[in-house]
Amino acid sequence: MDALGYYNGKWGPLDEMTVPMNDRGGYFGDGVYDAAIAYNGVIFTLDEHVDRFFNSARLLKIELSNTKDELKKILNEMISKLDKGVYIVYWQATRGTGRRNHVFPGGASNLWIMIKPQEIPDLTKKIKLITEEDTRYLHCNIKTINLIPNVMAAEKAKAAGCSEAIFHRGETVTECSHSNVHIIKNGTFITHLLDNLILPGIARSHLAKTCVKLGIPFDERDFTLCELFDADEVLVSSSGTLCLSAETIDGKNVGGKAPELLKKIQDYVMGEFCEATGYVLPS
Amino acid sequence: MDALGYYNGKWGPLDEMTVPMNDRGGYFGDGVYDAAIAYNGVIFTLDEHVDRFFNSARLLKIELSNTKDELKKILNEMISKLDKGVYIVYWQATRGTGRRNHVFPGGASNLWIMIKPQEIPDLTKKIKLITEEDTRYLHCNIKTINLIPNVMAAEKAKAAGCSEAIFHRGETVTECSHSNVHIIKNGTFITHLLDNLILPGIARSHLAKTCVKLGIPFDERDFTLCELFDADEVLVSSSGTLCLSAETIDGKNVGGKAPELLKKIQDYVMGEFCEATGYVLPS
Repeated sequence: MDALGYYNGKWGPLDEMTVPMNDRGGYFGDGVYDAAIAYNGVIFTLDEHVDRFFNSARLLKIELSNTKDELKKILNEMISKLDKGVYIVYWQATRGTGRRNHVFPGGASNLWIMIKPQEIPDLTKKIKLITEEDTRYLHCNIKTINLIPNVMAAEKAKAAGCSEAIFHRGETVTECSHSNVHIIKNGTFITHLLDNLILPGIARSHLAKTCVKLGIPFDERDFTLCELFDADEVLVSSSGTLCLSAETIDGKNVGGKAPELLKKIQDYVMGEFCEATGYVLPS
Repeated sequence: MDALGYYNGKWGPLDEMTVPMNDRGGYFGDGVYDAAIAYNGVIFTLDEHVDRFFNSARLLKIELSNTKDELKKILNEMISKLDKGVYIVYWQATRGTGRRNHVFPGGASNLWIMIKPQEIPDLTKKIKLITEEDTRYLHCNIKTINLIPNVMAAEKAKAAGCSEAIFHRGETVTECSHSNVHIIKNGTFITHLLDNLILPGIARSHLAKTCVKLGIPFDERDFTLCELFDADEVLVSSSGTLCLSAETIDGKNVGGKAPELLKKIQDYVMGEFCEATGYVLPS
């Protein structure tokens, strides 16, 4: 079994798992999720992900069936059933099961877990991105499974030979289709403030702490497309990729003007991951 | 069997049906749907619903597995397996099956059908509504299963003892959580124009045709919350409810000033339904 699925206590090979047709995830996308990278049976920054997951559920009034400790125990149990490799541990709670009806069905939410193999990101490899108008709803701070605009943007990036799409509302850069985005300019780390337009990324919060540790000024504010293209470095962070940097956006070269500062940041966040999980970078 | 589920050729009692955990509906809400009311084995305005469904799929680049004729044949086959009562026939296509990855998986989409009992709406019964800021994405013209804001608004309406929530973007009224909304003022029927902020309702288009037939001026334009509260009548339409009228909004009395015109319109749309399905109104 290279990938595992779990649904309300039942588990098995991911590709063989089924769920009820009446689960509200399937016809309303009525659920919240979180995901973290794991190595050697250790789910990295699990507490923070579980805290965010509970906050997402609270904001959508989804009553979770487990306490935080119970959920962590289940997640740790499930990762222990697989080999000691690298995985993405994904879980979601949907607002119960019932015949389609917009109003809440009452009763317990459903817990889904999907664990699949992942690769440790190579932070020295730069990525290409596109920009895309951000037409999403105004609840991007909640990690929900209403992800069609993200899916469409990610596919558009792929069709352009790129790996991510940077959303912007007019001139203001918000985040990517499945990452946060940041810039470095004149030695300052700049990133969109935490409001309803972006996800409070766990990798983002670790970058913030990294800046404090390394004495790098950290500025949370709106920044523009113009500033993005003019940045010394453009950074993209997510729990699966930690902290990558951009080579091109919309085919134009970007960043590359503060490589030493970038490397210091990347080394720090990768160091955290290695320390927590016992992972050793290939030399 | 009082309700039927269908998934890619397999069918059975709705509440017992399962779907793969890896169906993209369940973790991205990556799908489009449509639904129509049926009586006596006749799915009302099926051609229009299937046309809209294909348009929704086209806009999201979801490759449907069937032609329109094939889909209609399947839907008609499924409704024929149930008694000759009143049903909501709901179907959706999700963008295939695969381990979670934002980019398109390739391959065929999945066809889901859910048919459940419904009641013929009593158009003489007025409804209560609330208003709610419209925080949805900018693709409300596409009938997708990314419906969390709609779910939240419908629940808020229910908690207030109401049956629908009217969305507004600032002062501009758009539509309801699962209906379109219209007003009558000084003999003119006024409704939001067809753009990306509202669903092109089939019941709405029948109301437009009804106005032409009955010689009622039909004005497609933005209208405000102020106009809503000041309207002679407030009408709410959907395929399941045809055309209801409002009694209160946010607890304030509305409409009731053009009852004869309202009745003419409601009689006409109910007459269409009866003619198509053989339904006879209880006297």
